[in-house]
Amino acid sequence: MTQVTERVRNGVDTGQMFGTLDAIKAQPELGRFQFRATNRWIGGAHNRTTIKDFHGAGQEDTSRAEAFEIDAGEPAVLLGIDTGPNPAEYLLHALAACLTTSLVYVAAARGVELTEVESTLEGDMDVRGALGIDDHYRNGFERIRASFRVEGDAPEEKLREVVERASQRSAVYDMVTNGVPVELEVETWRSS
Amino acid sequence: MTQVTERVRNGVDTGQMFGTLDAIKAQPELGRFQFRATNRWIGGAHNRTTIKDFHGAGQEDTSRAEAFEIDAGEPAVLLGIDTGPNPAEYLLHALAACLTTSLVYVAAARGVELTEVESTLEGDMDVRGALGIDDHYRNGFERIRASFRVEGDAPEEKLREVVERASQRSAVYDMVTNGVPVELEVETWRSS
Repeated sequence: MTQVTERVRNGVDTGQMFGTLDAIKAQPELGRFQFRATNRWIGGAHNRTTIKDFHGAGQEDTSRAEAFEIDAGEPAVLLGIDTGPNPAEYLLHALAACLTTSLVYVAAARGVELTEVESTLEGDMDVRGALGIDDHYRNGFERIRASFRVEGDAPEEKLREVVERASQRSAVYDMVTNGVPVELEVETWRSS
Repeated sequence: MTQVTERVRNGVDTGQMFGTLDAIKAQPELGRFQFRATNRWIGGAHNRTTIKDFHGAGQEDTSRAEAFEIDAGEPAVLLGIDTGPNPAEYLLHALAACLTTSLVYVAAARGVELTEVESTLEGDMDVRGALGIDDHYRNGFERIRASFRVEGDAPEEKLREVVERASQRSAVYDMVTNGVPVELEVETWRSS
């Protein structure tokens, strides 16, 4: 009984976690993943992304029975009708979610039982950049502040190490802080 | 009647758009925005972000009656139970949504009536990086491919210019391609 209880920590099956690590070490090509998103414009600032299949662990993954559909928008002051968070807010969400999951996984691997993880992220921008009014301002956030509150059954110093390690391993933290090359391909048609 | 019809193009009120541009040119401090996201861990790879208020156009914006709540997760192969798209997929969504809204706004400003905008984004990663198995691989995507299909009432070359201009002005495209400094603050508590 004790073994079964300890195997799942922070909602993460650590047996599966260490099994996955061993499998990828033994067969490195299982580590290749490709994630995908398809977006369709609906009108104005409203567009919708569909997310379902991906490639990973050596195969096309079809485990998701249904697609996720997520709507983006803009508030009135940015010419939208609030059909969803705006894209910059979604980037903050992606960063918060990735740091959180990373630290939950790191804690599970290190035997730390977490009781609470909360974060608040703020991004500052001057829209004179994106609006093309003044090129002294970049289009995106000048900086992002991420404040985490973490509670768990370990000394504060160990909890800090878990967050530190999570930031060193988070996919989105890496992308947001270091950037990623983006290849943009465009096909155009004149409507008849 | 004709003037009223032409004022709204692609679902964007161009009168309001040019009015906003003029207002920010006259009073540059209106261009300062701050967006925010608060995230709470639920269990395992499941966490939820709440997005509502922001600062912009010289004041705290309270125009959103309700908060947006968005759930993140991981598929089974990455130790989750599919409670939502994963954080890297949300980053693709943020990029697709921002490029789409940017090009819709640019088209509206330039008098181009769009009939369709669709995009597919793919991001490649080797999870040996994020899993800490092999430091030759970065944690995030090595590259992102974004393929846009755009239809509108202008010559193909003009439609391409609209997409080109949109990528030069998109907040999330800037952040994803160039990176953003992130300040990470951590408070920890040992659970009793």
